[in-house]
Amino acid sequence: MKIIQGGITSAKGFMASSCNAGIKNKDHEDMALIYSEKPCVAAAAFTQNKVFAAPVKWDKKVVNESSFIQAVVINTGIANACTGNEGLENCEEEAGMVAESLELSSENVCICSTGVIGPQLPMEKIRDGIKILPGKLRETDEAGSKAAAAIMTTDTHPKEFAVCLDIGGKTVTIGGMCKGAGMIHPNMATMLCFISTDAMIKKELLKKMFREIIDDSFNMISVDGDTSTNDTAIIMANGLAENDLIDTEDEKYELFYEALKLVSTELAKKIAGDGEGCTCLFEVNVKNAVTKEDAKTLAKSVITSNLTKAAIFGHDANWGRVLCALGYSGAEFDPEKVDLFFESEAGIIEIMKNGNAVDYSEDKATEVLSKNPVKAVIDVKEGKYSSTAWGCDLTLDYVKINADYRS
Amino acid sequence: MKIIQGGITSAKGFMASSCNAGIKNKDHEDMALIYSEKPCVAAAAFTQNKVFAAPVKWDKKVVNESSFIQAVVINTGIANACTGNEGLENCEEEAGMVAESLELSSENVCICSTGVIGPQLPMEKIRDGIKILPGKLRETDEAGSKAAAAIMTTDTHPKEFAVCLDIGGKTVTIGGMCKGAGMIHPNMATMLCFISTDAMIKKELLKKMFREIIDDSFNMISVDGDTSTNDTAIIMANGLAENDLIDTEDEKYELFYEALKLVSTELAKKIAGDGEGCTCLFEVNVKNAVTKEDAKTLAKSVITSNLTKAAIFGHDANWGRVLCALGYSGAEFDPEKVDLFFESEAGIIEIMKNGNAVDYSEDKATEVLSKNPVKAVIDVKEGKYSSTAWGCDLTLDYVKINADYRS
Repeated sequence: MKIIQGGITSAKGFMASSCNAGIKNKDHEDMALIYSEKPCVAAAAFTQNKVFAAPVKWDKKVVNESSFIQAVVINTGIANACTGNEGLENCEEEAGMVAESLELSSENVCICSTGVIGPQLPMEKIRDGIKILPGKLRETDEAGSKAAAAIMTTDTHPKEFAVCLDIGGKTVTIGGMCKGAGMIHPNMATMLCFISTDAMIKKELLKKMFREIIDDSFNMISVDGDTSTNDTAIIMANGLAENDLIDTEDEKYELFYEALKLVSTELAKKIAGDGEGCTCLFEVNVKNAVTKEDAKTLAKSVITSNLTKAAIFGHDANWGRVLCALGYSGAEFDPEKVDLFFESEAGIIEIMKNGNAVDYSEDKATEVLSKNPVKAVIDVKEGKYSSTAWGCDLTLDYVKINADYRS
Repeated sequence: MKIIQGGITSAKGFMASSCNAGIKNKDHEDMALIYSEKPCVAAAAFTQNKVFAAPVKWDKKVVNESSFIQAVVINTGIANACTGNEGLENCEEEAGMVAESLELSSENVCICSTGVIGPQLPMEKIRDGIKILPGKLRETDEAGSKAAAAIMTTDTHPKEFAVCLDIGGKTVTIGGMCKGAGMIHPNMATMLCFISTDAMIKKELLKKMFREIIDDSFNMISVDGDTSTNDTAIIMANGLAENDLIDTEDEKYELFYEALKLVSTELAKKIAGDGEGCTCLFEVNVKNAVTKEDAKTLAKSVITSNLTKAAIFGHDANWGRVLCALGYSGAEFDPEKVDLFFESEAGIIEIMKNGNAVDYSEDKATEVLSKNPVKAVIDVKEGKYSSTAWGCDLTLDYVKINADYRS
């Protein structure tokens, strides 16, 4: 497996385009289109929020009921959430327009929106965008990167990642793009993620694999604990790599699994590390928990603790807040067994042993905590299960951005 | 029932004192003592964090195993949490010293600490404080107010409340003081609350009543979602009002219940409204939920949403974030039935009807949201259960305080 330059257009037969439809009335692009020249088997994960947006409703139907999908159209600026029947009708019209211009059926078109909750989509602008997008579709890295930039909201930079691997002598490529920033939390909060691959794989196996991988990647990141109405992750596989079909959990499956896991994890980390206003990616690794579930619960509790996140922003090795967050997580562990280390490129420092502070150097701790990314390693010494969660620090800018978001 | 000036010393026979023991090396007092001239039946609620401090361990034993308590000594600056056996031994010594000087037994003395997690108590300073405190005990309002100030950490002002009521021709008084600020969350996060009453009441009934009231008051407030190691609420009743003993759930019980509920709720609101860095008290009232549990879950989910809290700070009627927080709470409701109002002394404004935004005036909404306190009323129109939660906005100062807390 090799990490390569690229993103959503890296795998064979995938094209992308983007444009400024004027939805945000700003100087940057706000719509994107992904298209595969061949129909794709697909799998997807959606927000678990009871309040979910019209495009989520649309995509669930498409992914669950259609055998294939072939295009995804995305807009930022307006989320098309809490928009009732009119919102759903707008989805239908959008999919219809995209399908018509690409000679597809509308049930093969997914739609994603992100932005402000409440207003209806500005359909005049959306229609104008959809007229432009198909003609601009390209297979180039540049087209992929521009699409990755067009789907951003408060993200500070586009997020792409791609790998290739050899499966039985054939080169298989997996690439993806995503956007995140605010409202990122376990269970798929306002993030959109699109992964494309030319692998030939059976739909059922892709679904199973993607569900498992989502649990250890996108569902283990958090920016602020809020989960959103629009979160969607979609993977499309068009088979153009012409590898032997992955139709059972054999060695081919394992190889592809590892590669897809890397792509998903790296994209998820890019989202966590670009949380609204944050200055660093904060990784929490819990080791030796009684169950996998306990390990996850402990890691997530630390990554979502406002007090711990503010301490990370202040480069303060406040292990009390870490232990405290473990304590209220509800997971099984013995506080008097916990070891805690902080780690970054500046080194590793032991902060707590068996639930008590060790005599560490505050200067060294501050040095370790001043680098990006910062990692906390928590050994609960109870069992054999580990889990990693990713988040970011809580900063002044987070509050500034979210107090002024609509103005 | 009448609200009166006063606090922990308002009820007959209760005295308080405070001093600067130098624990914080600052210019303000950091220790306090509460004493009743007669032994008290008592009830208490403690943090549910798995990591709890030595004084919590001590107090649980005292309240559960002793028939009476008669004194509580409190220090700020150091939490005596994660301090192992030495921490517990320090509690024992402290209780012993207080007991000796007041001619009590140490199992009638409660101990509360709040502050930084990790370091051992500076016992030299604590001993000096305990030598001073008993001699300064007074029944005056002033002594109570000074004690309320001495227990503060990042609180911006002391918190006291008191009422008196008539039970069968006798005047019964209930007063209390508390401290809060950071790490306040449902399930009793770093807050200390002390309530004293001269009512004559059976211990079992006091326990039952206090547990119920805690659930609707202190367990319904949140500042930042973190729960702490030291949270404690203690009520002491010394019987000096000489009312007929409250020994069954009759009219006397109801009268006393309502009064204690008011004292607890007002103290809890004072904590929420003085959350670290906050500019306003934010009240969330959920109406007509299917069950009481659903109503509580919905109200708490909104009150703990960072995005909603940041919007309140920005005076932004961002109903999308409110609906979103309801959606991921896990409680039962239909998003398409929800009505939302914001309310303050500037008026009341309907923002959402049946899950959709109404055509409200943004200017009016900003005006309503610019006052303190601010209230959100959420009608889910499903059943008959209501619940109220209290919190505060998420501000730039919250982050500043918590990024710099130990420096």
